[in-house]
Amino acid sequence: MVIQPLIERKRDGGELTAAEWTALVEGFTAGAVPDYQMSALLMAVTLRGMSAAELNTLCESMLHSGLSLDFGAWAVPRVDKHSTGGVGDKVSLVLAPLVASCGVAVPMISGRGLGHTGGTTDKMESIPGFRTDLSLAETRDQVQRIGAAMVGQTAEIAPADGRLYPLRDVTGTVPSVPLIAASIMAKKLAEGLNALVLDVKTGSGAFLPEAERGVELARTMVGLGEAHGCRTVAYLTAMDQPLGRAIGNALEVEEALHALAGEGPEDLSRLTRTLAIEMLLAGGVVKNRKEGEARVEEALSSGKALDTFRKIIEAQGGNPAVVDDPGVLPQAEEVELFPAPIGGTIRQIEPRMLGEAVVEMGGGRRALGDTVDHSVGFVVTVKPGSKVIAGEPIASVFASDKTGVQIGLAALARAIKFTGTLDPLPLVSHRITADGVETLEPGYL
Amino acid sequence: MVIQPLIERKRDGGELTAAEWTALVEGFTAGAVPDYQMSALLMAVTLRGMSAAELNTLCESMLHSGLSLDFGAWAVPRVDKHSTGGVGDKVSLVLAPLVASCGVAVPMISGRGLGHTGGTTDKMESIPGFRTDLSLAETRDQVQRIGAAMVGQTAEIAPADGRLYPLRDVTGTVPSVPLIAASIMAKKLAEGLNALVLDVKTGSGAFLPEAERGVELARTMVGLGEAHGCRTVAYLTAMDQPLGRAIGNALEVEEALHALAGEGPEDLSRLTRTLAIEMLLAGGVVKNRKEGEARVEEALSSGKALDTFRKIIEAQGGNPAVVDDPGVLPQAEEVELFPAPIGGTIRQIEPRMLGEAVVEMGGGRRALGDTVDHSVGFVVTVKPGSKVIAGEPIASVFASDKTGVQIGLAALARAIKFTGTLDPLPLVSHRITADGVETLEPGYL
Repeated sequence: MVIQPLIERKRDGGELTAAEWTALVEGFTAGAVPDYQMSALLMAVTLRGMSAAELNTLCESMLHSGLSLDFGAWAVPRVDKHSTGGVGDKVSLVLAPLVASCGVAVPMISGRGLGHTGGTTDKMESIPGFRTDLSLAETRDQVQRIGAAMVGQTAEIAPADGRLYPLRDVTGTVPSVPLIAASIMAKKLAEGLNALVLDVKTGSGAFLPEAERGVELARTMVGLGEAHGCRTVAYLTAMDQPLGRAIGNALEVEEALHALAGEGPEDLSRLTRTLAIEMLLAGGVVKNRKEGEARVEEALSSGKALDTFRKIIEAQGGNPAVVDDPGVLPQAEEVELFPAPIGGTIRQIEPRMLGEAVVEMGGGRRALGDTVDHSVGFVVTVKPGSKVIAGEPIASVFASDKTGVQIGLAALARAIKFTGTLDPLPLVSHRITADGVETLEPGYL
Repeated sequence: MVIQPLIERKRDGGELTAAEWTALVEGFTAGAVPDYQMSALLMAVTLRGMSAAELNTLCESMLHSGLSLDFGAWAVPRVDKHSTGGVGDKVSLVLAPLVASCGVAVPMISGRGLGHTGGTTDKMESIPGFRTDLSLAETRDQVQRIGAAMVGQTAEIAPADGRLYPLRDVTGTVPSVPLIAASIMAKKLAEGLNALVLDVKTGSGAFLPEAERGVELARTMVGLGEAHGCRTVAYLTAMDQPLGRAIGNALEVEEALHALAGEGPEDLSRLTRTLAIEMLLAGGVVKNRKEGEARVEEALSSGKALDTFRKIIEAQGGNPAVVDDPGVLPQAEEVELFPAPIGGTIRQIEPRMLGEAVVEMGGGRRALGDTVDHSVGFVVTVKPGSKVIAGEPIASVFASDKTGVQIGLAALARAIKFTGTLDPLPLVSHRITADGVETLEPGYL
């Protein structure tokens, strides 16, 4: 296969055929297409874009480079949620057991932390004993048995993406809407879903901070999902401040447990409910949003959602005692309060700085092999708009040593701002479906 | 050195600093910057361009990655000519001895054949015994002794380009004006020149067929030359038909010998004289074009130019008998006439098809290690506008076997066209200097 003319055509704004994309992806995965040609092609794609037909083939080739979950004739509807990544975003931890307890199965295959954003797999591994390295067969069996599994990416799923992503990461070709969309959807479409709900983050802490690009990504992913017979709905949601109060793996598990008990922070609870209702609607187990809301309330208040979480933990080898006693989670060596440096109104809490600090404190990875300290992170008890008195504790740093404490305190001092305009993004601003983009009213649930 | 942010900046249309370009070129040449990052950067440059300051640094870094010819205090002016490559372009073979015999030294370091275009080094190697692999020291000594040397590219000159070019060749990043300009000028500026004359080809057989891009390349190279203290003048010249009548290594040497005896085809002679006069003017040995013309006439008619060619051949180990007896050159096994398939007026002779056929017949390289059959090629005795009778011989194929003859005849049948508009490009259309672009009158010498 001669690659150079394909690179040239893409460079000049042309299109590659389905057969060409398929051969490229297969050749690259097999090691026959060298990295230096693939990276030149990826840069041409990043700057020239892709047609819908090209994108479909790319996504399909990546999907077919590996295996898929096959639920055969199993009648229970399967719906998953995917987030493009944020700081303090523990929605998946609440959503998977909540939705599963309402009768929609959730075969959730998640990633690890990436850059300044955390990953569901790392968070779940805070729970002592919890295994995320289930095979596809184990995952399928567990989903059919208890309604949900929360596992990590394996080499079985879209190995082409597994080879492409690290190359994109070092060649400046990550922020390409079609490449992001194909990468996400190739993995999600391998889950054997009936429907998928996407949480596309926007704002300073998102990978694509501009709302326009977020909507573009959402539309692209919805198009890919629908083209593959998977009903796909996307929400554009705020990531200009951390979601909830906890940031860091074990701290977020603890907050997720509160939310499953109906006692989570308002923003986390509202976003989780919005997405849960959409998943129940997509799964066909409720007829309308109102009915969905009632079902969700019942699952939370009755303890059914929390009970499903306990079953998931148990099934995957984790210590289920965590559900009643978060003290089972790894505890940070050092905890220090952060007092408000001045009095006044909090204007902004910059999520990216806090996410990066967690990585620096050992709670995330810089390189693939790094071990993660699950105990470190932040709890920030204020929100933009909060009025505080000078010296009042407004956050806590959880660190493994004094150096970590210093990193954490410095990050809080930079991230929590008393100046600037107070104009936080609406938590949930747009809903994107195959029919178009809907702008949502404030307070939409 | 972290490469990724540099790729990202270039991708987004920004500029890299001089220090960054220098570190990139040095790192890449030393093997510290991986191919896959360099190819992504090259694609970003191809699609985003470079500022004049960036281009200067890139060219300078490539120049300084190797050695340069150093003529010290030697008072004789040095001027070279570079062509962007064409079919039947044997101008260098005539020009180097001609200009040297007029008192301007020509340290000519040339490339090998590239794609459908021939290379001066391959052509000169048609002469039995002729060595092109002189060291820089040998080249300098010969130039000082007899006024000219005609040698090949060595690893001493711009090794950064030696590593970059093969990567560009397979990653679709060849046709970038700044990358082409930097690659050419880094090598030419290593020749210790006082001035440089550029022959930028335009038309269907040129690497950049569109006149606008040719002018852009010419302006870019003129800018680079002048920024390095080398007076640089460029001509835009026609490559919509082969230059002269001969195509193929030994056949072109024979035609160059005719031209040095004042008996070459009109187009070859006129282009050679135009460039020679510019070189004599740039070298300061004549005061004006008229004086230059007289000096060139005298060098050709007196036999001085031919005599200098003999000295060059002798100095580089070639058989000087070739000057009086072209029969010394390798002779093709098979020679076959090509008769005009119909009568009428020749409308077009497509150079690219004939250049590609020479490669296919063994007269050029497909891969770096290929050996070249110097004997094969074409002599085309007609030009666009020629009126011919059906069956009249209008060209000859020189091949090593019957298969080669068939390839050659088929190529002639495709390349020589009796239909279409007869509108050949003017041989010499623009002169580009630091002062701007001058459109030339037809018949300009």
